[in-house]
Amino acid sequence: MKRRDFLTGAAAAGTATGAATLAAPAVARAKAATEWKMVTTWPKNAPGVGVNAQRFADFVTEMSGGRLTIRLFAAGELVPPFECLDAVQADTAQVAHSTPYYWVGKSPALNYFTTVPFGLMATELSAWIHFGGGQALWEEVYAPFNVVPFYAGSSGVQSGGWFNTEINSLDDLKGLKMRIAGMGGEVMRRLGVAVVLTPPGEIQPSLMSGAVDAAEWVGPWLDIAFGLQKAAKYYYVPAFHEPGPGLEVIVNKERFQALPDDLKAIVRLAARATCETTLADFTFHNIQVFSEMRDTFPDIELRTFPEEVIRAMGEKTLEVIEEIAAEDALTRRVHDAFVAFNRKAEAYQASFDLATLRMRQMVMGG
Amino acid sequence: MKRRDFLTGAAAAGTATGAATLAAPAVARAKAATEWKMVTTWPKNAPGVGVNAQRFADFVTEMSGGRLTIRLFAAGELVPPFECLDAVQADTAQVAHSTPYYWVGKSPALNYFTTVPFGLMATELSAWIHFGGGQALWEEVYAPFNVVPFYAGSSGVQSGGWFNTEINSLDDLKGLKMRIAGMGGEVMRRLGVAVVLTPPGEIQPSLMSGAVDAAEWVGPWLDIAFGLQKAAKYYYVPAFHEPGPGLEVIVNKERFQALPDDLKAIVRLAARATCETTLADFTFHNIQVFSEMRDTFPDIELRTFPEEVIRAMGEKTLEVIEEIAAEDALTRRVHDAFVAFNRKAEAYQASFDLATLRMRQMVMGG
Repeated sequence: MKRRDFLTGAAAAGTATGAATLAAPAVARAKAATEWKMVTTWPKNAPGVGVNAQRFADFVTEMSGGRLTIRLFAAGELVPPFECLDAVQADTAQVAHSTPYYWVGKSPALNYFTTVPFGLMATELSAWIHFGGGQALWEEVYAPFNVVPFYAGSSGVQSGGWFNTEINSLDDLKGLKMRIAGMGGEVMRRLGVAVVLTPPGEIQPSLMSGAVDAAEWVGPWLDIAFGLQKAAKYYYVPAFHEPGPGLEVIVNKERFQALPDDLKAIVRLAARATCETTLADFTFHNIQVFSEMRDTFPDIELRTFPEEVIRAMGEKTLEVIEEIAAEDALTRRVHDAFVAFNRKAEAYQASFDLATLRMRQMVMGG
Repeated sequence: MKRRDFLTGAAAAGTATGAATLAAPAVARAKAATEWKMVTTWPKNAPGVGVNAQRFADFVTEMSGGRLTIRLFAAGELVPPFECLDAVQADTAQVAHSTPYYWVGKSPALNYFTTVPFGLMATELSAWIHFGGGQALWEEVYAPFNVVPFYAGSSGVQSGGWFNTEINSLDDLKGLKMRIAGMGGEVMRRLGVAVVLTPPGEIQPSLMSGAVDAAEWVGPWLDIAFGLQKAAKYYYVPAFHEPGPGLEVIVNKERFQALPDDLKAIVRLAARATCETTLADFTFHNIQVFSEMRDTFPDIELRTFPEEVIRAMGEKTLEVIEEIAAEDALTRRVHDAFVAFNRKAEAYQASFDLATLRMRQMVMGG
């Protein structure tokens, strides 16, 4: 992706009610109503992503008693899916629900706020953003684009992808055409894969038509909902490249700053409530769909990448993130903060989450 | 704990402003202000628990523009720590921040909404409560007590506890006096431990004085903050009995129902935002404190329970939860729903979170 300097097919005007009315006294405020347009990178009502974007909008409407309402536009309805950031910057839309790594053409630092291969798990990313200095760095990255970011939760551990061939060695990756997002794409490219990034709505058709040999999307719930099991039978889990990708709500900075304090708090904390709701939604449905998947779709062959492949992915990851960190001073700071916390998290989890999951497996497992 | 039929030392009157004023029209509402009292089971400003109780209160105040404010009382300031549920039922306080298993004397079903040994991890408990039917069951359990529960997040995987002696076999548990909460206490009792449950503020003194030989509290962050490392040197991690204990906000039902819709949404979603904030707070600080702990306190001896002990804990757990489930029909339904989801979660995590943590360890570890 390259930085786009203007928006195609979208005018910068268009919000019916100016946010300025919200600065009026309390009594007037109770009567005034402002509508914001929210664009998203997701197909209409897409489970997990689209539905939780709508939940964020509903939370704001409910808590503000309708003083601030947010109208959702799915991918392509107001602007193309990969132009959401431009749209919020230009005030064509006042808010977007998306994920930061779609905008790495603007700043490579944005990778770290979605996910990094072998990086932070969902709860650790929350920890780093809310308490580890991540939020301040993220705001610094977005400042030139005139938007304020709010973390909007995670889809949890993702899947490695759907392949029409088995991956038994590094050789099996060479020459493969794969849809894969984020840094994982660059890692795969260095392992000989021809990488493409198609918008979410085009993943299944491109795998179906043979335009790609493999594609990763999210996890069992969304992958099955998007029909990927119809297009390839080898299902590699988990993802090496997306241990807990983050979602975002980004708001036009002037629009946000023009809100009175109570509506500012409502927008900020509606996003916070959306974090909890989104990860719970993905966790619940992934667990459910995974438990039913093998009966419902007996042709799916569940696989894990062999250790040789994982280690090579690890080496390339360290190489790739080091190069990304070197691109500019701000990205270096983001990288250093993220990696330092990731190393501490890894050491901690060996004694906590990993040990707990092993103990439960010992006692409750098949 | 036994059900108390009345509150000692606390009158049922006392809220300055009735919630009924909130039913007035919007213009009047914007001017009226209601103050709720919130009791907690936590010492004043206790990190993790007390601080996030205060955050919930602040979220409500900020989002409502001060129309509903919540004043926090730490353990013992208005009522004793283990009388919070009674206080909210009697409207002495309108809201409490606590954890459900402190009230198992009222209903054994409440165990499942805090934690069960070898049970759900924090993100899975969120999933079950928000999307798996847990919330409806929880409301049913609390209905006779006239309170409405909202999930308020988790402290994540906890620690097994601080011991003044090593646990190398089941024999080493026999005759030990230990402070341990929840079902874990009953499991330990069946393994020969003399179990006590002291309120949070009394854990360190009782371990220090030798009144107990071992005590579990939360995790590295809170354990160190409460000074447990001064009282015993063997630190067993992780907890077998608390893989992701849940916290709660409980609200007096009439007070909640008297709120206008926007304030209802604000209370409900302030709790939701508190979930995300609380787990992130614990995750961040546990990771930080754990990474510094061994340098700061070199005398701490980190240990894990031996496999023989874990397996025995597992057997006793299955025995104990089966007996608890048999206590009444509602507890049986809660148990069945929880256990069914826990088994699916265990199977899923073997391919997802557990596999991802292992991959990261392979690439980033040591």
